Amino acid sequence: MGPPPAPTGLPPEFALIARHFLPLAGEGALALSDDAALLAPPPGRHLVLAADAMVEGVHYLPDDPPDTVGRKLLRVNLSDLAAMGAEPLAYLMTTAIPRGTPAAWLEGFAAGLAEDQRRFGLHVLGGDTVAIPGPACLSLTILGTVPPGAALRRAGARPGDDLWVSGTIGDGALGLAVLQGRLPPGADPGGHLAGRYRLPEPRLALGVALRGLARAAMDVSDGLVQDLGHLCRAGGLAATLDLAALPLSPPAAALVAADPSWLPRLATGGDDYELLFAAAPDDRARVEALSRATGTAVTPIGRFTEGAPAVTVLGRDGGRITPAQGGWSHF
Amino acid sequence: MGPPPAPTGLPPEFALIARHFLPLAGEGALALSDDAALLAPPPGRHLVLAADAMVEGVHYLPDDPPDTVGRKLLRVNLSDLAAMGAEPLAYLMTTAIPRGTPAAWLEGFAAGLAEDQRRFGLHVLGGDTVAIPGPACLSLTILGTVPPGAALRRAGARPGDDLWVSGTIGDGALGLAVLQGRLPPGADPGGHLAGRYRLPEPRLALGVALRGLARAAMDVSDGLVQDLGHLCRAGGLAATLDLAALPLSPPAAALVAADPSWLPRLATGGDDYELLFAAAPDDRARVEALSRATGTAVTPIGRFTEGAPAVTVLGRDGGRITPAQGGWSHF
Repeated sequence: MGPPPAPTGLPPEFALIARHFLPLAGEGALALSDDAALLAPPPGRHLVLAADAMVEGVHYLPDDPPDTVGRKLLRVNLSDLAAMGAEPLAYLMTTAIPRGTPAAWLEGFAAGLAEDQRRFGLHVLGGDTVAIPGPACLSLTILGTVPPGAALRRAGARPGDDLWVSGTIGDGALGLAVLQGRLPPGADPGGHLAGRYRLPEPRLALGVALRGLARAAMDVSDGLVQDLGHLCRAGGLAATLDLAALPLSPPAAALVAADPSWLPRLATGGDDYELLFAAAPDDRARVEALSRATGTAVTPIGRFTEGAPAVTVLGRDGGRITPAQGGWSHF
Repeated sequence: MGPPPAPTGLPPEFALIARHFLPLAGEGALALSDDAALLAPPPGRHLVLAADAMVEGVHYLPDDPPDTVGRKLLRVNLSDLAAMGAEPLAYLMTTAIPRGTPAAWLEGFAAGLAEDQRRFGLHVLGGDTVAIPGPACLSLTILGTVPPGAALRRAGARPGDDLWVSGTIGDGALGLAVLQGRLPPGADPGGHLAGRYRLPEPRLALGVALRGLARAAMDVSDGLVQDLGHLCRAGGLAATLDLAALPLSPPAAALVAADPSWLPRLATGGDDYELLFAAAPDDRARVEALSRATGTAVTPIGRFTEGAPAVTVLGRDGGRITPAQGGWSHF
């Protein structure tokens, strides 16, 4: 007889993966049970690929609801696809999480991913789950597709082009301030600002609609002024940003009305995940029609000009101002 | 006149990326200066995608040379491509590193990546660099290609098939033991074991050569016994593993000769990154010819059998043994 066969039971991470992540897997994932995923590229399309990581306590707060952490991880990556005019296809994800992470946290995290997968039409292809003796570190690689030659790029703005932005600016940074107690809870009566910090809205429909119309585009994630600087450098031209034109949500507008010094801070705060793009002045009506068609507000907030790459920021009175910083820096 | 235009200078992570990671970028990466990469899929090929993360102090030691950390990060992912019989194409990488990480560390890390990019023929498409208030967390998503239908899979072994493994088993686990002081330095005279822990060898040429020949394959990363269990479950059959046949390096063989209790531990230790595969007994000569052609040692170490998925481990005397654990677990 001898002893029984050696245990082939699986270690706990396999149960974790099977319970929480396997339901997220789709075509090509091979049920997450091979060494890699296998994907037939969609015919006649080019692939668009981006990877963004989120660290607990840096990109999200330890007590953020886990479903919004999962959704934000997916959405910040979807926002990169939107900026390229791409449509979502699939993603891979690595999660480095502390031992002892409650199953309820993972359940919420996966439920948030599941909800947004359905909403945005993509699925998990693969990934890795490991333990980390420190803050959770979540990394996602997203795949999207575009017709060949149709991707939006950062280079391409021309002097005289209008500068447009989608949605509203500054809500994410204000939401973080509320959640960190740097603003009183009364500053965010309906929780709109906190919601915008936790759950950005990737402007995918607008990105697709802007193919062939926007001459340059990117997503605003690290602060409007700093990110506009990227468009200037990529295109080899300057830009003027008119803060008086900045689209603000009602709570953001109320804060600025009470203390105008908020305005430049909103333009440098980060966590907006809105599309910033250039279009010819002759195309203003077309841009506005696409805005209506996609249900996405857009606002002209400045203009590109001849000159060395630089951003001129005009305050509410039309005078030049110099924000203390251009945007977010990790280091 | 007014104040000067607002600063459009870049925060420090852009200098870091430009200095260390931009030289790694290749076709489709758009010089890492757009929101995403843009890739025309290679015509007539399917994509193979995998993602593996490494955490400082978990997957590598804080004082490992940074060039080997970069190379190991790439190689553990390349090993997943090898297991599928795929050829490398490109990768995306997110690095979450502590503030104050020395430039020399990043320089070494990137130099290691550059060296292995050249060796294995792939390049960076994109990624993200962020700060983490904890151990470094490095995540890589790799893309490879295979002809349609040619990928090696974990399912497919048949009763009677030989079980093969490439290279040698146990060196990585022993190398870690040496580096952690659990084995005396004299156990690793030439540094072979430590080198195998720090720098696994992805068996890419063998993986490609095994297309159409291996009936099932995977890479051994979490311990031979545990990983063989995966092949059994995927194929719905049992396997017998003959430890007396295990291919050992000279320092591993010397340790086993001095203390036979090492043998089962080598079969469960992890960090091997060798290919484990099934082939028909009639194909033994073909497998050996491919081994010679690719310069990769292969050894038959057991057999697949009818039965419920389970691994029977035979010790040096031919009797059944039960290892204390099947392999590595994170949680």
